[in-house]
Amino acid sequence: MRMYDIIMKKRNGGELTDEEIRFFIEGYTKGEIPDYQVSSLMMAIFFQKMTAKETLTLTLAMADSGEKLDLSAIKGIKVDKHSTGGVGDKTSLALTPIVASLGVPVAKMSGRGLGHTGGTIDKLESFEGFSTSISNETFINNVNSIGIAIMGQTADLAPADKKLYALRDVTATVDNMSLIASSIMSKKLAAGADSIVLDVKTGSGAFMKSEEDSFALAREMVEIGRNAGRKMSAVISDMDQPLGNAVGNAIEVIEAIDTLKGKGPADFTELVYTLGAQMLINGEVAPDVPTARKMIADTVASGKALEKLAEFVKAQGGNEAAVYDTSLLKLAEHCIEVKAPESGYVSHIDCDEIGICSLILGGGRETKESVIDLSVGILLEKKVGDYADAGQTIAKIYANDLKKAEVAIDRFLKAYHFSNEEVKAPALIKGII
Amino acid sequence: MRMYDIIMKKRNGGELTDEEIRFFIEGYTKGEIPDYQVSSLMMAIFFQKMTAKETLTLTLAMADSGEKLDLSAIKGIKVDKHSTGGVGDKTSLALTPIVASLGVPVAKMSGRGLGHTGGTIDKLESFEGFSTSISNETFINNVNSIGIAIMGQTADLAPADKKLYALRDVTATVDNMSLIASSIMSKKLAAGADSIVLDVKTGSGAFMKSEEDSFALAREMVEIGRNAGRKMSAVISDMDQPLGNAVGNAIEVIEAIDTLKGKGPADFTELVYTLGAQMLINGEVAPDVPTARKMIADTVASGKALEKLAEFVKAQGGNEAAVYDTSLLKLAEHCIEVKAPESGYVSHIDCDEIGICSLILGGGRETKESVIDLSVGILLEKKVGDYADAGQTIAKIYANDLKKAEVAIDRFLKAYHFSNEEVKAPALIKGII
Repeated sequence: MRMYDIIMKKRNGGELTDEEIRFFIEGYTKGEIPDYQVSSLMMAIFFQKMTAKETLTLTLAMADSGEKLDLSAIKGIKVDKHSTGGVGDKTSLALTPIVASLGVPVAKMSGRGLGHTGGTIDKLESFEGFSTSISNETFINNVNSIGIAIMGQTADLAPADKKLYALRDVTATVDNMSLIASSIMSKKLAAGADSIVLDVKTGSGAFMKSEEDSFALAREMVEIGRNAGRKMSAVISDMDQPLGNAVGNAIEVIEAIDTLKGKGPADFTELVYTLGAQMLINGEVAPDVPTARKMIADTVASGKALEKLAEFVKAQGGNEAAVYDTSLLKLAEHCIEVKAPESGYVSHIDCDEIGICSLILGGGRETKESVIDLSVGILLEKKVGDYADAGQTIAKIYANDLKKAEVAIDRFLKAYHFSNEEVKAPALIKGII
Repeated sequence: MRMYDIIMKKRNGGELTDEEIRFFIEGYTKGEIPDYQVSSLMMAIFFQKMTAKETLTLTLAMADSGEKLDLSAIKGIKVDKHSTGGVGDKTSLALTPIVASLGVPVAKMSGRGLGHTGGTIDKLESFEGFSTSISNETFINNVNSIGIAIMGQTADLAPADKKLYALRDVTATVDNMSLIASSIMSKKLAAGADSIVLDVKTGSGAFMKSEEDSFALAREMVEIGRNAGRKMSAVISDMDQPLGNAVGNAIEVIEAIDTLKGKGPADFTELVYTLGAQMLINGEVAPDVPTARKMIADTVASGKALEKLAEFVKAQGGNEAAVYDTSLLKLAEHCIEVKAPESGYVSHIDCDEIGICSLILGGGRETKESVIDLSVGILLEKKVGDYADAGQTIAKIYANDLKKAEVAIDRFLKAYHFSNEEVKAPALIKGII
């Protein structure tokens, strides 16, 4: 078998066999097939697409390319959750304690932020002492004892995907539905859960800008997961403006804690309930959505979800007192109010730009090596559909460096658009698959 | 400027600017842009094509990427000739002495054979002592004194093309018309001639299998050359069966000498006259085709063309006596007659396969490092349209290794197809542009 023939076949519109796909993924992972052949294959795939069968095989081959997590020592149905990423997306922070408190074991791998989107691990590190660098043994033990553990993604999870994604990223071959879906799903399959609930974002702050593409990606991932024998659900949710009000790290943790106390922003709370219901159903602890939502409301009202977060933070070395006293979560020195430059309804927020403002303040990574400032961030007071009088506060900027704050505020204001006519807030949940 | 943006632009169907094309060619030649980005761009070009403007810029950028031959010290209009390659193509051997004897200066760079097609330099080395490794100074001096010199292509001629072609060859991105045309023309433009006459082959033994593609390639190259300020002509000629009767090295030299004596095969003689007429017209020594053909017939009849070959061979260190006594051109030890397996008209010859037979005998290179046997070869006695009785000789195989001969003969017979019905010999000249 020759890589040349595989490129030629795909270029000419052929369907690659399982053997051909495994040959190329294994050869590439081992370094036997060079980057330049793989990048030309990726471009051929961009133009000729892949069938559902090819996509499944590619996903499985990448999932098989490294270590696979064995969660069999954990009792119950393991339900994983994955978000395609966005601005202000602190969903896991509130969602995982809720479902864990209701008996769904949470054994989750999470990532760090890069560019304008944040990462769960960075946010969790706002708890002093918290660590996700735990052994597989501790990980499994914690899930069995308290029902929840989150660890950093190991380097050897789906290494083929890691290598392939890095190559696609510099050769303009990222935006193909099958390649995106297989990249995400290969890691999720290797992470070993029985069920996966996907949160596919859509809008200006999401990877997928249009609803059509977001639904297509969700369907593609659900199909892969089902064909790989996993129970799947996908929620398509709005990312045309930041999720909730907080954008940053510590500030997002505070908002997640507020939500566990029943005092979170309406949009964020709704997303947590929607995803939580899917997780409870797939985890077979709830029969239907109304029952599941009632269970979530109860566990929040009783304080059990908040307690679960405290248990979890403590088990991974963090200061759990901060769960009950959020003033222990350090925010930046300066808090600058941003005022509306004109009166009107907020008609649109360039969502990516708000993420970039947080990055400029020091709360995000420009490169993998960047050190981030967990205390900076943004708190939105007006979102799409809200009315603001000229001079009224639309957001608070938490900054440690006033020069950076100036740049961020300038950019922030350009990202906000106003209209004299009434504007409807966008629907948060676009659909469930 | 970023290579990533250039790939993305082409992928999305945009037209690259001169600056973008020069940026990528210069960066790639210097090793600043990696293979994997260039191969993905090549695949994007395969799908999105290039405009005439892009193709011209690419060609000029590659021609400018290394040394360019300065032929200004040679008097007269320098006319180069290029063949896209085929089986039994010894055209330059007969054509260049003819036009040189008529006052068109021949300052030509030639290549060696690879795969099933031969190269002019290998064939010339059948003359004992002949060398194409001559200095630029000797090259120019010889053209000025005797009107003809042929040298090997220097390593630094269009190095960008060399690098790019090697990459395309392993990434399934060779067969794009603009890329093929720019590859050929970049070397021709760098080689400095005022006019270029192209011999574009078509058929089973050619790179371009269909007449449509061959005409398209010819048109593309002529357009590039004209836009680059060169006088251009292209002849599209048959390569659906070997050209002439001889396939090999020394054996082809003998056939070329026979042709210079006016005793060559009809098809090969016709091609030499057709291309020669274009060269004489472009070189401004003949006003029209009838006059040019008359001049060629005269120079052959007078023996001047043959003398010019002898002068040329001598000037580059070869034994010119062999020009007058071809028995000095050593042929292989064994001559095996191949008999027709059935009676009938030769209906088709798998042309590539005849080239491969010569390669099997030792007359061609499998890799660039192969050492070749100049004495082996094939002499066809029946070509398409000829009738053969069963058992009649259709070809002679010249071999030094009888085991190799056996393999070659087996393959040779499979390449010959017979029909009971009369078959018309294919037209040699398909068109002139």
